[in-house]
Amino acid sequence: MPVLHPAVEFYFDFSSPYTYIASEWIEALAARHGRTVDWKAILLGVTFQAAELRSPVSHPIKREYSLHDFDRSARFAGVPFTLPDPFPIATQNAARLFWWLKDERSASAAPWARHCLRAYFTRNVNLADVDALKRLAAEFGIDPDEAEAVWTAPAWKARLRQACDEAIARGVFGAPFFVVDGEPFWGNDRRAQIERWLASGPF
Amino acid sequence: MPVLHPAVEFYFDFSSPYTYIASEWIEALAARHGRTVDWKAILLGVTFQAAELRSPVSHPIKREYSLHDFDRSARFAGVPFTLPDPFPIATQNAARLFWWLKDERSASAAPWARHCLRAYFTRNVNLADVDALKRLAAEFGIDPDEAEAVWTAPAWKARLRQACDEAIARGVFGAPFFVVDGEPFWGNDRRAQIERWLASGPF
Repeated sequence: MPVLHPAVEFYFDFSSPYTYIASEWIEALAARHGRTVDWKAILLGVTFQAAELRSPVSHPIKREYSLHDFDRSARFAGVPFTLPDPFPIATQNAARLFWWLKDERSASAAPWARHCLRAYFTRNVNLADVDALKRLAAEFGIDPDEAEAVWTAPAWKARLRQACDEAIARGVFGAPFFVVDGEPFWGNDRRAQIERWLASGPF
Repeated sequence: MPVLHPAVEFYFDFSSPYTYIASEWIEALAARHGRTVDWKAILLGVTFQAAELRSPVSHPIKREYSLHDFDRSARFAGVPFTLPDPFPIATQNAARLFWWLKDERSASAAPWARHCLRAYFTRNVNLADVDALKRLAAEFGIDPDEAEAVWTAPAWKARLRQACDEAIARGVFGAPFFVVDGEPFWGNDRRAQIERWLASGPF
């Protein structure tokens, strides 16, 4: 009987450029090593608060570097990228819809996440704008009124809050954040370490 | 006539684990591409203040991850590493001695930096302790009383302050921080991007 390896857990935020870049390589990398990816939407604003952190673009000096590095890191990974305007944005509605899909139509959850990330970071679709997000849902095949009913529902608000709390309890303080066999890896730039772990185990 | 390529500028802090790891690979990487390395000691405490940042180990949640990641990133790079105690420490004396060497015996400056980084991160030599630093200077071939005279002299205090101010003016907010042909790269994890830049130019 083949050994079943646990999925690579992938904590992501819809407004994080490094998350978007990582979202374009994590599926293929995991698949090459016989793994699946377990996507988990969180809100960076919530994890930042727990870890007393701020967005890199809210720091003087670091801001200019980060804006430059987003672009360069996307080119380095071979991923199309245009810094959206506005940036960053509130993404709780897209994230609530993600958890609804994950619980009710699980095969659609990760595709929805990629659809949103690509829309925001390559087509400048503002995920914080309710009308834009409804159009994006319709494009994806979700009834836009049903989508809005989900992200305004207390149950799905609570589901996202619970996901953020669980992430923080597991040590997540940023995104992208990966957990492989219980081992935590933070950042798009941990790709090579994740690859080594998947290829040859703990090091 | 061969084209002369500018040196890779390497801003470092004596108390930074990621700087120490990078200090073990940057010389060989630069040399493979016909470059030298221009070492520049700074104080992270000063650049953190300018960029409104704190040490990763001073943040809840991120602290535990960082302590684990220092070790793992050192193993990934094949570099011996033991988290020193105390950590982090004040390193202005070692840094003032670096700038004195750089200005007066320039060939010794980078070797002194590596001597200190290895002492702190593999032998737990506390660079903030005056007696320990004097012994380290003596090991390196510097008269310990002359060393002490340097790091207590207003002129070398001013030299380090000037180096920190210049770094901040150039956009440095952390360490290790590299500048290659004017292009800024922050962090031990920008190694692959620096390598691509050195091998094939801007991307």
